[in-house]
Amino acid sequence: MSNPTAAMLVIGDEILSGRTRDANMFYIAAKLTPLGIELKEVRVVADDADQIVGAVNDLRALYDNVFTSGGIGPTHDDITADCIARAFGVNIDVRADARAILATAYPNGEADLTDARIRMARIPEGAALIENPVSKAPGFTLENVHVMAGVPKIFAAMVDNLLPTLKHGASVLSTSLRVDLPESKIAPDLGKIAQTYPMLSLGSYPFYENNAHGANLVIRGTDKEQLELAEAEVKAAFDLS
Amino acid sequence: MSNPTAAMLVIGDEILSGRTRDANMFYIAAKLTPLGIELKEVRVVADDADQIVGAVNDLRALYDNVFTSGGIGPTHDDITADCIARAFGVNIDVRADARAILATAYPNGEADLTDARIRMARIPEGAALIENPVSKAPGFTLENVHVMAGVPKIFAAMVDNLLPTLKHGASVLSTSLRVDLPESKIAPDLGKIAQTYPMLSLGSYPFYENNAHGANLVIRGTDKEQLELAEAEVKAAFDLS
Repeated sequence: MSNPTAAMLVIGDEILSGRTRDANMFYIAAKLTPLGIELKEVRVVADDADQIVGAVNDLRALYDNVFTSGGIGPTHDDITADCIARAFGVNIDVRADARAILATAYPNGEADLTDARIRMARIPEGAALIENPVSKAPGFTLENVHVMAGVPKIFAAMVDNLLPTLKHGASVLSTSLRVDLPESKIAPDLGKIAQTYPMLSLGSYPFYENNAHGANLVIRGTDKEQLELAEAEVKAAFDLS
Repeated sequence: MSNPTAAMLVIGDEILSGRTRDANMFYIAAKLTPLGIELKEVRVVADDADQIVGAVNDLRALYDNVFTSGGIGPTHDDITADCIARAFGVNIDVRADARAILATAYPNGEADLTDARIRMARIPEGAALIENPVSKAPGFTLENVHVMAGVPKIFAAMVDNLLPTLKHGASVLSTSLRVDLPESKIAPDLGKIAQTYPMLSLGSYPFYENNAHGANLVIRGTDKEQLELAEAEVKAAFDLS
């Protein structure tokens, strides 16, 4: 049986404009691998309704899980919740439970809920809330789409709440071996080993440091025995200890 | 006249598996903005031929430029050049000029060109080479698709060679203002200012540090005068100096 799959959709202009280096895809990618949920694709789109709706509908049809980050705050450029509703063709409105949770974030509760704040309690019909322990305003899950905040600290907290509730797969084991040889020297043997173990993924990630070429060889798979056999062959082929 | 657009396609398992935090999209995004080439979308896909071909054909139809990184080395998992040829429906073979350039990377020139190395001189029909000052193996441009290496140092060097040859747009100016207020407090005024300046993009990027909420407000656009007017309105609205 194959592992559940996932895609991530990063929503917002920060990465596209070069202002910010991504943190959220790096965070979730590292969390999914040991759970056996295979991250197959990431897309980054701007705060543009057509782009967001298009990407959500592409990805939710292709993968078991879609994780989104960004665009669920109170400002004019926060359009993610509306786009999710549009993508699914469902209504969206302020929801009582989300509003009540939000009120707990402010000293005077309900009395402090301005229009801008209430905007964060707009939830598409049929969604389940994702808890936000940092600033209360919840994320939500609608079918296989999990909508979370873009602020890295809040995104991480939501991911930590969400992931235990999802279907996990066989844990993907991996081993990394550093080879201080240019890829062109290791390619023939590595290719043969990759063919010998079709159930494993054998990746070569070249680097260039101190004017010398090398590669990190990463063997990944769910079968421990196969992994160890392949690791031994790689070590023997390139004289690694 | 609107600015030229672009997408980036990151090819390879490193980011999807959580091994590596992206560097290349961050590098190119920061380089494109001042040139007036607008990065509209990024996709990250695995070393999977169908995924790569599909993404290349989607993106090249939608945007003026597509930049790819990764998968042009000599190992079995380097399949990008073949996928580009397949996406365009053109032939791919070892090309004499690419092979001659590659030979300059090795002490004995041609005599050092093993099969694995020669693989890096396979170029789709009709492509123009992109110089690689770090390790010689060239990238290439086929129509509006620019294919570059994944090693950050080599990717950056190729980008630096490529970008001056592309059509630039009106330089996108931007200004960033830090507001130490939660977004919910600034949302109403900010929304009004955004409506007043439809030619500008007014983004609010919330942060959470030292247990307090704030936001970086980024105003972007090509019209200096409008930008300064909007900046003055934002400063006045939130008592910024």
